[in-house]
Amino acid sequence: MTEQILQELFPTLAAIKSPGDVQTLDEKELTRLGEEIRRMIIQTVSATGGHLAPSLGVVELTMALLRVFNPARDRIVWDVGHQAYAYKLLTGRLDRFHTLRQLDGISGFPRTCESPYDHFGVGHSSTSISAALGMAAARDLAHQDHKVVAVIGDGSMTAGLAYEGLNQAGGLGKDLVVVLNDNEMSISRNVGALSSFLSRKLSKRWVQRFKKEAESIMRQIPKIGDDIAEYARRSEDSLKSFFTPGMLFEAFRFTYIGPLQGHDMRMLTNVFQQTRELEGPILVHVLTKKGKGYAPAETNPTFYHGVGCFEPETGAARKFDACALPSYTEVFGSTLCKLAEEDERVVAITAAMPEGTGVSCFADKYPERFFDVGICEQHAVTFAAGLASQGMKPVVAIYSTFMQRSYDQIVHDVCLQNLNVTLCLDRGGLVGEDGATHHGVYDLSFLRHIPNLVVMAPRNEPELQHMLATALAFDGPVALRYPRGVGEGAPLAQTPTILPIGQGELLREGTDGVVVALGSRVSPALEAARMLCEETGKDVAVFNARFVKPLPAEQLLALAASQPFMLLVEENALPGGFGSAVLELLADHDALSNLRVRRLGVPDRFVEHGSQKELRARLGINRDGILKALHALVR
Amino acid sequence: MTEQILQELFPTLAAIKSPGDVQTLDEKELTRLGEEIRRMIIQTVSATGGHLAPSLGVVELTMALLRVFNPARDRIVWDVGHQAYAYKLLTGRLDRFHTLRQLDGISGFPRTCESPYDHFGVGHSSTSISAALGMAAARDLAHQDHKVVAVIGDGSMTAGLAYEGLNQAGGLGKDLVVVLNDNEMSISRNVGALSSFLSRKLSKRWVQRFKKEAESIMRQIPKIGDDIAEYARRSEDSLKSFFTPGMLFEAFRFTYIGPLQGHDMRMLTNVFQQTRELEGPILVHVLTKKGKGYAPAETNPTFYHGVGCFEPETGAARKFDACALPSYTEVFGSTLCKLAEEDERVVAITAAMPEGTGVSCFADKYPERFFDVGICEQHAVTFAAGLASQGMKPVVAIYSTFMQRSYDQIVHDVCLQNLNVTLCLDRGGLVGEDGATHHGVYDLSFLRHIPNLVVMAPRNEPELQHMLATALAFDGPVALRYPRGVGEGAPLAQTPTILPIGQGELLREGTDGVVVALGSRVSPALEAARMLCEETGKDVAVFNARFVKPLPAEQLLALAASQPFMLLVEENALPGGFGSAVLELLADHDALSNLRVRRLGVPDRFVEHGSQKELRARLGINRDGILKALHALVR
Repeated sequence: MTEQILQELFPTLAAIKSPGDVQTLDEKELTRLGEEIRRMIIQTVSATGGHLAPSLGVVELTMALLRVFNPARDRIVWDVGHQAYAYKLLTGRLDRFHTLRQLDGISGFPRTCESPYDHFGVGHSSTSISAALGMAAARDLAHQDHKVVAVIGDGSMTAGLAYEGLNQAGGLGKDLVVVLNDNEMSISRNVGALSSFLSRKLSKRWVQRFKKEAESIMRQIPKIGDDIAEYARRSEDSLKSFFTPGMLFEAFRFTYIGPLQGHDMRMLTNVFQQTRELEGPILVHVLTKKGKGYAPAETNPTFYHGVGCFEPETGAARKFDACALPSYTEVFGSTLCKLAEEDERVVAITAAMPEGTGVSCFADKYPERFFDVGICEQHAVTFAAGLASQGMKPVVAIYSTFMQRSYDQIVHDVCLQNLNVTLCLDRGGLVGEDGATHHGVYDLSFLRHIPNLVVMAPRNEPELQHMLATALAFDGPVALRYPRGVGEGAPLAQTPTILPIGQGELLREGTDGVVVALGSRVSPALEAARMLCEETGKDVAVFNARFVKPLPAEQLLALAASQPFMLLVEENALPGGFGSAVLELLADHDALSNLRVRRLGVPDRFVEHGSQKELRARLGINRDGILKALHALVR
Repeated sequence: MTEQILQELFPTLAAIKSPGDVQTLDEKELTRLGEEIRRMIIQTVSATGGHLAPSLGVVELTMALLRVFNPARDRIVWDVGHQAYAYKLLTGRLDRFHTLRQLDGISGFPRTCESPYDHFGVGHSSTSISAALGMAAARDLAHQDHKVVAVIGDGSMTAGLAYEGLNQAGGLGKDLVVVLNDNEMSISRNVGALSSFLSRKLSKRWVQRFKKEAESIMRQIPKIGDDIAEYARRSEDSLKSFFTPGMLFEAFRFTYIGPLQGHDMRMLTNVFQQTRELEGPILVHVLTKKGKGYAPAETNPTFYHGVGCFEPETGAARKFDACALPSYTEVFGSTLCKLAEEDERVVAITAAMPEGTGVSCFADKYPERFFDVGICEQHAVTFAAGLASQGMKPVVAIYSTFMQRSYDQIVHDVCLQNLNVTLCLDRGGLVGEDGATHHGVYDLSFLRHIPNLVVMAPRNEPELQHMLATALAFDGPVALRYPRGVGEGAPLAQTPTILPIGQGELLREGTDGVVVALGSRVSPALEAARMLCEETGKDVAVFNARFVKPLPAEQLLALAASQPFMLLVEENALPGGFGSAVLELLADHDALSNLRVRRLGVPDRFVEHGSQKELRARLGINRDGILKALHALVR
């Protein structure tokens, strides 16, 4: 979009040259601004995909914040950051907004390196209160007096990290504004006691009941004598039905303001102005509607939470040919349902992402065996350990990048006790457009050193089926990682079979060298080997390792002894990853003296956003990258 | 102690043959039992060291639990487990209790493999509610009807994991008893808003104030009309000072019972009996005194939380020669204080362990720059990231094993943003008697694959000083790990010097091979090399690597090119550890064809408890183990 078209179609938005400009607009202009922001977000995300519903829900909230707080001076931390599109548009990124989530374009999340107005990089949930408190502490130590604001969703509030931040913030008493963006959802419907507590909205009945109950308590006071504990218990019983959300936060020594209607910008602005004058930790509770202003997203906020390309007029998802294939997520979900039918000890656990991890069908079919714990990856794993300690077979489905939060629980609660927990790490490898905060490229490195754990990765859809069956049949903890997106269309198995633990498979014979590949990199390795043969007549073997732990040691050692080189290919960080494990094996068996070894994988730097295809090409781990490496080796 | 002496000195305790026997005792016998348990714990721990004060505090609570709940049927999960000595004595481990924390003796923590009455293995804080909820869910799926009890301290309640468990437990509404063991301490004094909230004990003034305030609210009710939100705000303001601990848990839909005097066993037993009959999630709030019944521990519960050997009569710590040397922890603490004097951007953060991590002196000297966040390792790191994002230089001091809980925050909040956070991992390597749950032998493996992070380990006390100075001078994130216990008595530096990043040092010349050692393994490697020379005349070089990331690549490659073998020695898991990193380097540079490589380190299994010396010997990573490996290599 040229500058001229921008100015024609989005005149108010295009006139915002710095965030402070929002403060100069009158009410009519603000209304137009909000309308233009929504239009721009819908138009852009319909073409790029992205987090639509969360960003639409906070348009007024964002404008109101910018009317009162100036990010050139004040600090604003967006929790998770998938709701920050309006903020990006108002803080100097309008002209680049069409590059959202594209390779070398702007990120879908706030990033300090992208803008001076992004004060903290985010992506994972529930970091904002902790980070903002750190900023407030730094401000006070430097004797500065700007404001620090954290904006956090009610879904993010279920994570323990948010609670830890809240607890210290209340204890320290520093100036800090926490805006609770309460849309009664995390990604899906919210769960847990807290969410139902937050939704106990005030009503006339509240007042009437208070009056009645309080009178009854008052009547008892003269009679109770000295039995204070008993009295306190009774009065608590009577009062407990009067909890308002505020009381919880008051317990953490926050001043509570709310609940406020989150799409009434005038009122929000006024409240924020008053809030600015207050001291100490303050929680402003704002009620918003996820997807606000776009009917399809209001109606189905879960689908439009993070969405692919769609038709902006109707909201209909754009069809791509590839979408005809089932995703790994779907294959996992359907296989889990099937296996659960045969073994009633199988239970499924997700951390606020039943749709994203493919367990919705399981939840529908076996509601009593299904547990959505909320955004609580730590608890998900320890809860699973508790279930497994009693003979159940829990399957914990969490994205690889979020499983990072369960590392200690995997070590301490699952593997140390050698419990039958199956960890299913969806989105293992490069995830594409969500970028650096979301790539699942460390799981092999943070898992493979844990004793007792079996770690595997399927090369295609039926192998995922087999591996899930293998995991459930295995007596001990298993981690299974598979990629984001559709597979390669390999026909699904009617009945998954149990694979021998620690055995790989030779997929292609050859004597000029061997490619040892894992998971998603097996098929490109096969293709590269075929192309090499066509181009040079050289025949390299291709071995599908399947297991990172225990490695297929005998097979690998036999290959090492018989081949001139070994090319190791993975979609994981090179340090400590799969190739590293093979090196350890080969070194421990003195198998390296006559073998050239090369490793391909994710280099030791954080990887930007872009499509999976683009990123794999850039990192040299696609077919062409493998082929290039083979050419260098066979020479 | 023979069976006969046991029966003479501890007749009531020795008569308990199964936990159910506690239910047959009358009140006088129970009083004697409590006295014998305390005597046995004090006597044993004075000789073995251990968690004295926590266990003394729950003697009555343990007996009361066992009078009502039968661990042959019901499930009891002790949070952390350092308070479970009385439980161990009453559940079949009296005869082995003198082996507490000794090599091949019983563990200092509950372990499922040690006793059928230990229902869940513990060691790290705040897992009990999650695990117990998993057990309750499994029970209901299996249509069983036993009770599940979690016993958790108020300190453990500050961790986010406990909150996550509480939130789901309240949401699910399953039968579950959580006993809150409130001694107003974690390991040190408690921090955060929650702890002050819990301690708002009921008093007469509470009643008087309630009466007054409630009357004032009542008077306003007729006037407020329809402005409900305004009214609600005012009434909340008035009521907020009336919070009792129960209200917080009621907010999570727990039935709250308490606070109860935790050393009144008759009352506790009665309450537990009533609790048994109730349904849904129940929280029983019990007030106990840490160290109860042993004057030195009551007076100084922090010192006696986890204690070495002491004189049982006086409580005086037994002096060992080694104790004359400063511990690594102390060297860290004093160096930090010194460096903080020169740079006011340096701030220190600990997670409930100011004494354990050596930052007490810093806290005394720079109270405004010191933050004890409570048992919140996740928050500690993200809070540090917030501070660092504003130009501060936070130093986060946490034991290696507990830093596991911050893995995601280290990746996502610190390293991805390349922030100046210094992570100080005390107790890196084998910790000794605390055993499998506490060994810090995974840190190199879970840290070295994270981009931007510098990872180092000092070989002795002055090198720790230099490395801390180096970390604070470095522009980016640093992890620094050092061992538990005293160093080797190397003279401390007056002024720490800044080391070149990614450079090691050759400590011993030699051409018959090279030992590349890291951290605590450097000195034993030097000794082994000297002994080898004496025994065989062979001269091996010894190289102190200092850095795991970035590796001293040029130096290592030069050694690889000039030496016949390289022996890599570390006190970390072999998979993904330091030696693994060196293998990656050598393989990437084709430096392995003429080099034999061997790795010594912690094998791929969980390591039991025992003294550091015993464990290092058993794993073959002490001087003699290194010497043995050298003999095999030089031959």
